[in-house]
Amino acid sequence: MTDPRPLPIFEDVIAAHTRIAPHIHRTPVLTSGFLNEMTGADLFFKCENFQKAGAFKVRGASNAVFGLSDSMAAKGVATHSSGNHALSLSYAAGRRGIPCTVVMPHTAPEAKKAAVRGYGGRIVECEPSTTSREAVFARVQAETGADFVHPYNDPRVIAGQGTCSRELLDQVAGLDAVIAPIGGGGMISGCCLTLSALAPDMQIYAAEPEQADDACRSFKAGHIIADDAPVTIADGLKVPLKENTWHFVSTYVTDILTASETEIIEAMKLTWQRMKIVIEPSCAVPLATILKNPQVFRGKRIGVIITGGNVDMDKLPWMAGESRNRLI
Amino acid sequence: MTDPRPLPIFEDVIAAHTRIAPHIHRTPVLTSGFLNEMTGADLFFKCENFQKAGAFKVRGASNAVFGLSDSMAAKGVATHSSGNHALSLSYAAGRRGIPCTVVMPHTAPEAKKAAVRGYGGRIVECEPSTTSREAVFARVQAETGADFVHPYNDPRVIAGQGTCSRELLDQVAGLDAVIAPIGGGGMISGCCLTLSALAPDMQIYAAEPEQADDACRSFKAGHIIADDAPVTIADGLKVPLKENTWHFVSTYVTDILTASETEIIEAMKLTWQRMKIVIEPSCAVPLATILKNPQVFRGKRIGVIITGGNVDMDKLPWMAGESRNRLI
Repeated sequence: MTDPRPLPIFEDVIAAHTRIAPHIHRTPVLTSGFLNEMTGADLFFKCENFQKAGAFKVRGASNAVFGLSDSMAAKGVATHSSGNHALSLSYAAGRRGIPCTVVMPHTAPEAKKAAVRGYGGRIVECEPSTTSREAVFARVQAETGADFVHPYNDPRVIAGQGTCSRELLDQVAGLDAVIAPIGGGGMISGCCLTLSALAPDMQIYAAEPEQADDACRSFKAGHIIADDAPVTIADGLKVPLKENTWHFVSTYVTDILTASETEIIEAMKLTWQRMKIVIEPSCAVPLATILKNPQVFRGKRIGVIITGGNVDMDKLPWMAGESRNRLI
Repeated sequence: MTDPRPLPIFEDVIAAHTRIAPHIHRTPVLTSGFLNEMTGADLFFKCENFQKAGAFKVRGASNAVFGLSDSMAAKGVATHSSGNHALSLSYAAGRRGIPCTVVMPHTAPEAKKAAVRGYGGRIVECEPSTTSREAVFARVQAETGADFVHPYNDPRVIAGQGTCSRELLDQVAGLDAVIAPIGGGGMISGCCLTLSALAPDMQIYAAEPEQADDACRSFKAGHIIADDAPVTIADGLKVPLKENTWHFVSTYVTDILTASETEIIEAMKLTWQRMKIVIEPSCAVPLATILKNPQVFRGKRIGVIITGGNVDMDKLPWMAGESRNRLI
């Protein structure tokens, strides 16, 4: 499905920031002397794990929800997601007091379903297949007339995510580069949108799991390559690029670096141990690639986007049996 | 052993703050909408888990180390501890470039030993008994002439810990109360020292594990009661009060509240899940007591000292087998 709306421009980021400011946190930037020494770089971690609903996704979702006219808002919003976008859209809709419907496979973790309901979202279950999801979602839209907020390809969502690097530039002077995980490309597109306007010389790196490296292969091939069902512990990064995010990635990204599952888990554990923060596997991918490619980052000032902190504490990847279960 | 030096006064806290500022972090204060709703109070978490060496103890240790004359410093410092004080004193001594010797039972976790050595500390092992520890420590002192920095009863250490609540008052206006864990009483004594000078009407609560409730029983009895070897997951809180900390606790503390092991583990997991920060079991005790005694805190603005974040990621208390091993 092609999004008929035009690509967002930087003025959309500014408007988004004003619109969502009452509903989000201006998250802190943390540093670690230990990790700086280990990498030879100055790392500035933008902690969206402390964001409302536990992830940066609330920026884009809030921009979509609070940008609706009253008459459109009355019909509510809808999406398909079993991840942070589902939580974030439910949170934003709850703040505006409008309905939110999330189509989610019945196999999704109970904890995610509970979190969506906790924010006031309604879940409609589908089978864990694209066919079923699309059919169920079409029915939901027909029944409710709800506005569809795509997790990352929606221009309003990209503009919302762009507010994150706008804050980062305000918080840290003299950055040489920014690095963020890439799945569907919403966060990276937001970075591209903001940095190309405010700091066009800054380098933009995307970090991706080796086992879900479709964006990296797309970047090299010059066109979108979508994998069917990649298997990685970084479960926020399994989705493919779409035309809007591909535009930003192909135009502005410096390079896409990858890391193995073991490297991702080690970087995640290292961050928990040394920085004392809870981060998702997905947001450990940038640090994993920095540790793997020290020559790219040494001596530079690097902004690292920590995208979220929604983790099942009972299934940590270094717990006995967990990594084996996930990686086979 | 009675400390011959006079009790610290608030001017010592001010001097300590100036002395240690270049060597410590001014740690952030975090809040959680979820936990505020859950408790009916406004909670302000002072995050010493983000402190240098991972715990507030570096404040007191740095004050002792950087307050030494050059001739005394040349002989180094020494202590007995298998916890955060050992790491903190090693860190501070390393910053000043002087020797640090830590007497530690050979049964202490390898991770702690490695951390002390990582900061440049020297470990001298003893048997896991008070007799052995005192004999070995006396020998170390005789051999080195090192200055003994007690983990909590030392007036310089108490004055250093007092800088934490001084920062908190600067960061959050209108607090009604402060709550911190209590073991030997160093942090609580520092709070008492600072708050009795700057905010004498503010309430001061101490939080203690039920299974190591010697401070609570001392408080009720009016004299120090020391337990031999209490068993609790909150391993920083097993030590007894000493005369200097008892002075502050008995004079200024409003009340001492206790929580069970299960309540502590639940509060710890809740903090990780909701606040996305890594905290030690010891610093979950205040939240556990707030959740247990909502009537005491409801409607109030409460400063909560998160004392440290040094946790063995491979032995989390909610991992299978862990809580059973520890609690029996």
